[in-house]
Amino acid sequence: MKIVIVGGVAAGAGAAAKARRTDETAEIVMFERGNYVSFANCGLPYYIGGVIEDRDELLLVTPEMFKSRFDVDVRLNTEVVDIDPKAKTVTAAGPDGKQYAESYDKLVLATGGKPLVLPIAGSDKAGIYNVFTVPDADRVTARLEADTRSVVVVGGGFIGLESAENLRAKGVEVTLVEKLPQVMSNMDPEFSDVLIREMESLGIRVLTGVGVEEITGADKAEGVRLDSGETIPCDLVIMAAGVRGSTELAQKAGLRIGETGGVWVDATMKTSDPDIYAAGDIVESVHLVTGKKVRVPLAGSANKQGRVAGACAAGGKLTFRGVLGTAIIKVGGLTAARTGLNTREAQQHGYDFETILVPGFSNATYYPDAMPLLLKLTVQKQTGRLLGAQGIGRKGVDKRIDVLSTAIFSGLTVFDLENLDLAYAPPFSSAKDPVITGGMIAANMVRGEMDYVSPRDIQTYLDDPAYVVLDVRTQEEWDDFHLEGAVLLPVDELRDRYGELDPAKKYVVYCAAGYRAYNACLFLRSRGYNVKNMGGGMNAYHMNV
Amino acid sequence: MKIVIVGGVAAGAGAAAKARRTDETAEIVMFERGNYVSFANCGLPYYIGGVIEDRDELLLVTPEMFKSRFDVDVRLNTEVVDIDPKAKTVTAAGPDGKQYAESYDKLVLATGGKPLVLPIAGSDKAGIYNVFTVPDADRVTARLEADTRSVVVVGGGFIGLESAENLRAKGVEVTLVEKLPQVMSNMDPEFSDVLIREMESLGIRVLTGVGVEEITGADKAEGVRLDSGETIPCDLVIMAAGVRGSTELAQKAGLRIGETGGVWVDATMKTSDPDIYAAGDIVESVHLVTGKKVRVPLAGSANKQGRVAGACAAGGKLTFRGVLGTAIIKVGGLTAARTGLNTREAQQHGYDFETILVPGFSNATYYPDAMPLLLKLTVQKQTGRLLGAQGIGRKGVDKRIDVLSTAIFSGLTVFDLENLDLAYAPPFSSAKDPVITGGMIAANMVRGEMDYVSPRDIQTYLDDPAYVVLDVRTQEEWDDFHLEGAVLLPVDELRDRYGELDPAKKYVVYCAAGYRAYNACLFLRSRGYNVKNMGGGMNAYHMNV
Repeated sequence: MKIVIVGGVAAGAGAAAKARRTDETAEIVMFERGNYVSFANCGLPYYIGGVIEDRDELLLVTPEMFKSRFDVDVRLNTEVVDIDPKAKTVTAAGPDGKQYAESYDKLVLATGGKPLVLPIAGSDKAGIYNVFTVPDADRVTARLEADTRSVVVVGGGFIGLESAENLRAKGVEVTLVEKLPQVMSNMDPEFSDVLIREMESLGIRVLTGVGVEEITGADKAEGVRLDSGETIPCDLVIMAAGVRGSTELAQKAGLRIGETGGVWVDATMKTSDPDIYAAGDIVESVHLVTGKKVRVPLAGSANKQGRVAGACAAGGKLTFRGVLGTAIIKVGGLTAARTGLNTREAQQHGYDFETILVPGFSNATYYPDAMPLLLKLTVQKQTGRLLGAQGIGRKGVDKRIDVLSTAIFSGLTVFDLENLDLAYAPPFSSAKDPVITGGMIAANMVRGEMDYVSPRDIQTYLDDPAYVVLDVRTQEEWDDFHLEGAVLLPVDELRDRYGELDPAKKYVVYCAAGYRAYNACLFLRSRGYNVKNMGGGMNAYHMNV
Repeated sequence: MKIVIVGGVAAGAGAAAKARRTDETAEIVMFERGNYVSFANCGLPYYIGGVIEDRDELLLVTPEMFKSRFDVDVRLNTEVVDIDPKAKTVTAAGPDGKQYAESYDKLVLATGGKPLVLPIAGSDKAGIYNVFTVPDADRVTARLEADTRSVVVVGGGFIGLESAENLRAKGVEVTLVEKLPQVMSNMDPEFSDVLIREMESLGIRVLTGVGVEEITGADKAEGVRLDSGETIPCDLVIMAAGVRGSTELAQKAGLRIGETGGVWVDATMKTSDPDIYAAGDIVESVHLVTGKKVRVPLAGSANKQGRVAGACAAGGKLTFRGVLGTAIIKVGGLTAARTGLNTREAQQHGYDFETILVPGFSNATYYPDAMPLLLKLTVQKQTGRLLGAQGIGRKGVDKRIDVLSTAIFSGLTVFDLENLDLAYAPPFSSAKDPVITGGMIAANMVRGEMDYVSPRDIQTYLDDPAYVVLDVRTQEEWDDFHLEGAVLLPVDELRDRYGELDPAKKYVVYCAAGYRAYNACLFLRSRGYNVKNMGGGMNAYHMNV
């Protein structure tokens, strides 16, 4: 048995190790076009920023170790340029440029991705860098130490945001430009607003809804001209417009390409050719909510897929179930995370759903360092099934997203959520964790006990003469800030004073987080009033985290 | 409709609020024997230690608020002393001692618990305190400010450990005494060892396996005499030997008491009397793994049960599913947590199971502040069903336990665990989160790909001449520390040097965390050797966290 693996980073390296564990007698060859195997690509922005001080920390595994421990023949700086599936050979171009054939019994394609190159004039100038490989990071680091005072980062995704923050931490002027109207386009827009606020507080200029027309400068980048007309002078440009899976080789080999443009695989990561497996950024995966194929090029999936591909190529039995698109990012002191379907995705897939905003705290508010956080749940209306979740805050967001991801993986409904048995002690949570509170709020909605209005739509109600927007907080909170056009009637005076409210009007009730408004709504409804609750209250309105 | 609620802390207060939300027209009366409703009992040790500075923070809700917001008639310092289920009345003894009858249509019993009083000579002396109510905490605080230099804490559960730490933080000499051989008896013994080490590092003396015979002193406590013969002088004794549910009232009313000694309830929290509901520390609940009834007197369950009891008493429809006994404690910089069945519980219930030790890190090791943690999974052998989980470490343990609790709640197997889509970025996790790694290790075990030996049993193998204990770490790690009697053969030399190993012997292989040993085992097995892996390696052996 001879197993050939194309690509030696996350998926490829994992496949090689697992193939060896599955078949001790196989011959295993791993080709890698770069100079490193299994490096920590997610750490690169932090290495540039000096958060990770030791470059060696990024190099998880060496080719020598692959040889001694796994008896894997690693061939660096070698690109596989062709596959002949009938002859079962690949054509490799070695470091010296010479091409040679290598036969295989089973082939694993883990060619990964390459940074997307935008069709921008001047893209070929010097001084334009990606943050994708260790040499990329070395080049940027060298330029930072030399002459760089200002940088434009193009792209507002993971690498763009992390790079912007880390460059700023090095004392450089940073402008981030994103063509879409928001950053982190895999989250709902209000989360982007909070992230931009945080980046601005770090001294980063953020421009959204603005495209790049040209990289200006004689030979090297000296500025970025935007479609807004503005030109931002800079010493360096970071291109972080996303990653495109390197599917060329798979396509040349005639492998089936799915409707998403990714390589089609079954649950064992086998392609349409029974002797070829694929894993990582090039494949499409089953989405565990929709059942549809999607492409989610993230490290967690790549690792799991590589393990399955390596095992199955070597004759073992493992399956990869699919993805939820779970993802997380740190920006300054904030954490933003998502799993399952966001609002746009739930719409695209035609779900009848509601979103629920849940302001909460990382831990018991009476214990020190409790920090506010906001969860947003996407919930199927009839069934109460949890379709997706997003969260943002300064502490404990990663925990809640992982719990919610596990809940979605398990097909839980909001009626299940409100029954979870989560760990409570004051330093870690509240007696009702925000996930459980979210389940309760969502369950009330699905049961038809409460109607919610999004804080994003509140102006419509403020402008509508048929509606009164009722603030049930205290006078003190009202004085501090309130919605222009709202009416104050504190919840604790409502039972005595509700007669002041015109029963001919309809009411949208708000408080700080939604709980007092919930109680007020139920009371008013029992008195015959038409009421809705502004979900998440002022905390969600301001996105206070 | 008149709803009477007996008890106004976690379950009772929640029941009152939910009953009001469910039926706006009901008359609701809530009796509380103490002076406070809905106070933060889990915060009391931290108030004593000064971590929570403001006493008002403990008082979540006032009776006035219950009146104005929920129209609930709260009667403080009033103990319900009898129930007449036929007449549907309760007898209450007010603050003036006078008794009166109060009728009900629906009754909710949330009488909670009382600190267990041990049959110890001298228990009636002055200077012996509980940490159970706000007045308890006030009394201890007053004594700390006055004359206290040394304290003995009796009991090594949540309140005992938290009280010991917080008293020590006030500069007092603290000795903790526990009759059982370990502290935190709801976790496996090795977790207790780590917690004791941490307490000792805080300067707390911890004695386990030692009973208290007498509280010495003339009128007030001046020492604690142990069954070891030693007498520990002290100014103050904290009794934290556990809580006993106050089921007397329920028993007097003739309500069905379950086999656990707790009040029997159905999923709507209804007792054997169709007009009486019960919630909190007095009831028994369904264990979500075993399906058997258990008593888990914790705040999270009490809150959820109270909500269900309040809703159902008022004619609504909610159910409480059951418990997993999820619990968490902070000791110094450590977090220890558990959910589902520990080893002892899995044995008691006759499961055919294996435990898996998983050393891991809070986040990517190449990112700053990655902290080691240890998970222990209880896994059913044939099915791979996750029965329980425990964890200990300095960071990120709460997250993993909540994910594992959600997994157990959902009935997941270890084959599911290895497929979870958890959030990864370097500050939050690794590409393979410890939960996923744990799933993979456990799945390998269930699939029969690997045999594990517990680090706790390793001496047996070291002593057995039929076995060789093989250390596959580096010479450097070996020089630093190794098991006496083990043999060194680094994994990266194994392919060249395995011929040195006697095939007639059996082998137990270990490394630092189990991964190198796993690879070594698979290699050696392919060469015909009989091998087992010491699960969790040296990290689990030392319980390094």
